[in-house]
Amino acid sequence: MLYDAAIIGTGPAGLSAALNLKIHNKSFIWIGAKTLSDKITKAERVSNYPGFPSVSGAGLCAAFKAHAEAMGIGITEAMVTQIYDMGDHYALNLGADFCEAKAVILATGVAPRNTLPGEAERVGRGVSYCATCDGALYRGKTIAVICANARFEHEVRYLAELAEKVYFLPGYKNPGNIAPNAELVPARPAGIEGEKKPFRLTLSDGEALAVDGVFILRDSVTLSALLPGLAEEDGHIAVDRNMATNFRGIYAAGDCTGRPYQFAKAVGEGNVAAHGVIEYLASLGGEPDNA
Amino acid sequence: MLYDAAIIGTGPAGLSAALNLKIHNKSFIWIGAKTLSDKITKAERVSNYPGFPSVSGAGLCAAFKAHAEAMGIGITEAMVTQIYDMGDHYALNLGADFCEAKAVILATGVAPRNTLPGEAERVGRGVSYCATCDGALYRGKTIAVICANARFEHEVRYLAELAEKVYFLPGYKNPGNIAPNAELVPARPAGIEGEKKPFRLTLSDGEALAVDGVFILRDSVTLSALLPGLAEEDGHIAVDRNMATNFRGIYAAGDCTGRPYQFAKAVGEGNVAAHGVIEYLASLGGEPDNA
Repeated sequence: MLYDAAIIGTGPAGLSAALNLKIHNKSFIWIGAKTLSDKITKAERVSNYPGFPSVSGAGLCAAFKAHAEAMGIGITEAMVTQIYDMGDHYALNLGADFCEAKAVILATGVAPRNTLPGEAERVGRGVSYCATCDGALYRGKTIAVICANARFEHEVRYLAELAEKVYFLPGYKNPGNIAPNAELVPARPAGIEGEKKPFRLTLSDGEALAVDGVFILRDSVTLSALLPGLAEEDGHIAVDRNMATNFRGIYAAGDCTGRPYQFAKAVGEGNVAAHGVIEYLASLGGEPDNA
Repeated sequence: MLYDAAIIGTGPAGLSAALNLKIHNKSFIWIGAKTLSDKITKAERVSNYPGFPSVSGAGLCAAFKAHAEAMGIGITEAMVTQIYDMGDHYALNLGADFCEAKAVILATGVAPRNTLPGEAERVGRGVSYCATCDGALYRGKTIAVICANARFEHEVRYLAELAEKVYFLPGYKNPGNIAPNAELVPARPAGIEGEKKPFRLTLSDGEALAVDGVFILRDSVTLSALLPGLAEEDGHIAVDRNMATNFRGIYAAGDCTGRPYQFAKAVGEGNVAAHGVIEYLASLGGEPDNA
């Protein structure tokens, strides 16, 4: 199915965009986490989102979720690893699956700043962001899994079923049990070295692990990996006042477009990006509205 | 008193800006209507302001008011008729009063599109936007008062106390009683003609009134009258991604900066404008925070 639009990200910017596309009867896929946003939930107190005096982050997130549910908008839990320009539309790699959309709204939050030294140049040849897509390539091998969020532990377990040996590097406290063949590595990853297998994953304690592959499970991939050629400015996606990026039909909203990192700014930009997409879809011609 | 900032407008953009200046302990004056915004209140149903599924405009406005009150933010009921650049700060004409601020956030809503033919060039010499400031000039004279909103009827009554004769042209249904010397004119104003008194206020029915002055009481004055030299784009205030205008220290947010005319966009821009002002104030040096 070719959607009118894909929204990547379920924070306030993605929600605001989704509400507007829904109201305008556009067909769209909303990709992210059913919990919406850890960043909102973890906020102790929010006092500058107009209409909610002094609300907890969890309370605001609950109101956001209730709004999406009241509008009948569902979320596809997946991570987009790459966006491909197909000429007149875009294809999104969801790991094991693909989807296609005429327009895309990037609402991915603050992009990971610190990729590992040696990471970017080894994507697809030793470095993977997707257990489902690439796990089978490492059957019977030795891999390292850098896991930024406990939400992804089920993917680490899946990888441990395939690999002979897993070095597990959680980026958070109190990680769960993975599997007997998964060794918890308490050091932080420092970089990836070597031109062919085995690669060396160097560690903050000066040690190094010899591995056939490195899986990096983060909330979002770096922008340059997501969509090569996407114009950036000061480490954020470059947009104009309509939230349009340098790719025709691709818009961005929220923290990924720059400071201030604020819920109010995010909902505003999500609204504007959705209206940009609606205008863009109209410019493509064809049927005016999909039910 | 020299405020850190003045916010002009009490819609969602002004509110969002006020919340953020308050949190950052800036001294500021918030100018507008204690009812916040007729435009919000009159909205039958709002379904795309995240966190409020399907709320009435009145309900959303009540939540906005409660938020401002919970934060202890007061509103100064006045209309700003002109902003003067004083070099290192700005002076705002509030009719009978003045105030001064280092920075200004314009959140004035959609600017009146249709000024009358002949209006702009007669401001200050026959055309006035402010009963309090200019009423006394018309003691014993004949004037026309074009009144866009019933909220301003008390100003029409004040003018009727001074003038010999008032032609009253309300722009709404069911106007109130003004005074025995005020004549209700059922036609719409069409233009202002003549180079000296008496001017001719032409009407939609082809008639004309001979008057010594024309008072025009609107929710906001045109941008060119408010701040001569303010850069515009497509009939809106031109801003960059930080909501900065072409005047140093003057920011804009909400409908006055362009489409889409949406509450979510307005609160987002108000937030960004406030953060722009906070950065601007820091760049001025001096004490870091006013309590």
